[in-house]
Amino acid sequence: MKAPSETPLCQSLPATVPFVGPEALERCRGKRFAARLGANESVFGPSPQVIEAIRAAAPEAWMYGDPESHDLRAALARRLGIAPDEIVVGEGIDGLLGYAVRLYVEPGDAVVTSDGAYPTFNYHVAGFGGRLVKVPYVDDHEDPQALLDAARSERAKLIYLANPDNPMGSWHDGARIEEMIAALPDECLLVLDEAYAEFAPKGTMARIDVADPRVIRMRTFSKAHGLAGMRVGYAFGHAEVIRGFEKVRNHFGMSRISQAAALAALGDEGWIGEVRIEVEAARARIAAIARDNGLTPLPSATNFVTIDCGRDGAFARAVLEALADRDVFVRMPFASPGNRCIRVSAGRTPDLDRLEGALPDALKAAQAG
Amino acid sequence: MKAPSETPLCQSLPATVPFVGPEALERCRGKRFAARLGANESVFGPSPQVIEAIRAAAPEAWMYGDPESHDLRAALARRLGIAPDEIVVGEGIDGLLGYAVRLYVEPGDAVVTSDGAYPTFNYHVAGFGGRLVKVPYVDDHEDPQALLDAARSERAKLIYLANPDNPMGSWHDGARIEEMIAALPDECLLVLDEAYAEFAPKGTMARIDVADPRVIRMRTFSKAHGLAGMRVGYAFGHAEVIRGFEKVRNHFGMSRISQAAALAALGDEGWIGEVRIEVEAARARIAAIARDNGLTPLPSATNFVTIDCGRDGAFARAVLEALADRDVFVRMPFASPGNRCIRVSAGRTPDLDRLEGALPDALKAAQAG
Repeated sequence: MKAPSETPLCQSLPATVPFVGPEALERCRGKRFAARLGANESVFGPSPQVIEAIRAAAPEAWMYGDPESHDLRAALARRLGIAPDEIVVGEGIDGLLGYAVRLYVEPGDAVVTSDGAYPTFNYHVAGFGGRLVKVPYVDDHEDPQALLDAARSERAKLIYLANPDNPMGSWHDGARIEEMIAALPDECLLVLDEAYAEFAPKGTMARIDVADPRVIRMRTFSKAHGLAGMRVGYAFGHAEVIRGFEKVRNHFGMSRISQAAALAALGDEGWIGEVRIEVEAARARIAAIARDNGLTPLPSATNFVTIDCGRDGAFARAVLEALADRDVFVRMPFASPGNRCIRVSAGRTPDLDRLEGALPDALKAAQAG
Repeated sequence: MKAPSETPLCQSLPATVPFVGPEALERCRGKRFAARLGANESVFGPSPQVIEAIRAAAPEAWMYGDPESHDLRAALARRLGIAPDEIVVGEGIDGLLGYAVRLYVEPGDAVVTSDGAYPTFNYHVAGFGGRLVKVPYVDDHEDPQALLDAARSERAKLIYLANPDNPMGSWHDGARIEEMIAALPDECLLVLDEAYAEFAPKGTMARIDVADPRVIRMRTFSKAHGLAGMRVGYAFGHAEVIRGFEKVRNHFGMSRISQAAALAALGDEGWIGEVRIEVEAARARIAAIARDNGLTPLPSATNFVTIDCGRDGAFARAVLEALADRDVFVRMPFASPGNRCIRVSAGRTPDLDRLEGALPDALKAAQAG
C-alpha cells in the first residue's frame, strides 16, 4: 500500500505555517493571553452595525455565497471609482496572493521582494517554485529603486511591495510609488499590498490607475474594518489581469456571511473614522511606553508600532518571549535588521495597561537571559 | 506598458466558473427564484443552536481564525475515531480538492473520473495541467471497476469517486467501495467525495481505515449541516497524506465564525436526524411529482432527486429553463447520458408546492419548444 508521490515541487516544500497562531501558542502555554497584540488585528472590532449584519445573515448560512461577489464588488467599484470587472474578491489577501503567484510564476521564475517583508507571500512563491530575490530594507523602509533594479536584472515576473509596510510600519508617499510604477520594467507585475491603506496619512496611497496592466493592488477587510476572522480581501487592477483570477480561484470559496459583513462594513464609513482615532491614540501610547523603557518606537502608518529594542534579533526574541510569559502576545520581524524590533498592534486601554505593566519586567528578564 | 504573460498553463485555461450561481441567474432574469432547488443546499438550514452560535461569535470577527482549526479537528477526530493529525479542514470540499490536485498532479499526469461527475474537480485537474481520463457511468452509477482499470492502464495519480454520487444520487454499498480500495493500484490515490454521507442508507459508507495511504475522504458542513454559506469542508486519511496539505494550503483561510458554526453543528447531532427525516419526505414528494408528470425519479442516497425526463439533453435543458421561467431553480447533469435528467434538491413544502405547480406547464413548454 503506497500513496502516490507528491509532485517533485511539493516534495521539496516544508510542511510549514507562515505564522503560528495565537491560539496555538495559548495551547502550548496552557493559558490565554491577556492582551492579543501580535497579529495586527483590530481589537476595536467591526462596527456594531456590521455585527448586526452578521447576526441578521446567520439564518442564510445554508446558501452558498454568490460566487461572483457581485454586490460587494459593485460597492467596492463605486468606492474606488473603477468598474466591477477590475476587482476580484478572495479569501483574504493571503488567498489572492496565492492566486497571483500561481497565475504568473513557473518554477525558476524570479520574484522580487524585500528581505523581511510578508512571509506569506514568500510561502506562495516557494509553493509554486519561484526563485525569491530579496533586497534589503533601507532605514526600515522598503527600497523601491532596489526592487526595480533587481526586477530588471533578474527579469522578475513579480515585485512585492507593501505600502504602508508590514512589519516595519514605514511608508512612502503616493508620488514615490507612482514614480516606481512609471519605472516598472515591461512584463513585470507590481503586487502592491495596501492592507493598511486606511491608517496611512493623506497622500500615502498612489493614485488609482487601472489602465496600467503592470500593477495589481490588494486591500482587505481584516484591518481597519475589524473583520480578520471573516476572510475578505480584494484585488484591483487592469480588467485583463483581474480576469486571470477566474481561471484559478475557488469560485465558491467566499462565505456568504463574510460577503454580507464586508458589504455592511463598506456602508458604515463612520466607523473607520472612529477606529483611526483610536489607533492614533494607541500608537502614541505604545510609543510612549517604549520610550519610557528606553526603547525606540518607529514611526507608523499602520495599526501597529514597531519598537526598536536596541540590540540584536536574539534580544528582541527574548523580549517577545518575556512578554508572552506575562500574557502579552506580540510578534517581531523575521529578518535582520528588522528583527531587532518587536511589533505591537494598537490595543484598547486595558491591553496597553497590560503592556505597560509587563514591559519593564520583560526587559529585565531579557537582559538577564 | 505590458503585464507579464501568465504561465503557459494558465494561458491555456479558460476564464470559467464551474457553476453559474443562482444569484447571477437572478440578476439576468431581473427577479428572484421562488424555489431555490438547484444547488443541493439544505433549505432546512443550520440548526437554531448553530444560528445562535454564529450570532454569539459575531463580535469575535476581528480575530483571525485559528489556522490549525484545532478545536474543530479535535471534535471531528473524536467523531470519526481517528487522530486530529489525520484531518485537515479547508474552505469547503472545493478548496480541499484543489489542494489535493496541486499536491499530486503535474502537467500531463493522468487523473481518472467518471464522465459527468463533479465539474469542480475537473476544473482543478485542468488548472494544474492534469490529463483527465473519463469512464462512463453504468446505469447511472459510477463504475468502480472501470475507474480502477483506467487508473491502472493510464498510471493515474488520482481517482475521483463520489459515494453517494452527485449528480445522479446513486450509491454503492460500503463493501463495494472497500473492495475497490483493496484493488487500488499502488501510487494511486482515491479521492472519495462523501459530501452526502449523512443522507445515505446505513452500510453505504466504507469503513474508515486511515492506515491506508491510498485513500483520502472528504466531507462537508455544506449539506446535511446546512452551512454551505460558511465554507467548511474536511479531508481525512493517512497522517502523511494529510500533512501534505500543510505545504500548500491557505493556513489563515478559514473564517473564525465558520469554525465556530461547524463546531456548534457537530454538537447538535439531533438536528441531522430531523433534517434526514425532512429530506426523506421531500425526496418522496419530488419522486411523486415526477411520476405524476410521467417522468422517472432515480433512487437517491442524497438530499436531491435526479429525474429522468425521458428524452435527450436538449429536452432536459428545455425543462430546466421552463422551470426557471416559472421561478424554480434546478440544475442538471452536464454529460450524456445523465443530461437526460434534471436534478432537484430537497425542499420545504412551499418549495415543492411551487415545483408541483410549475412542472406540468414547464413540460408542455419544453415539448412545444
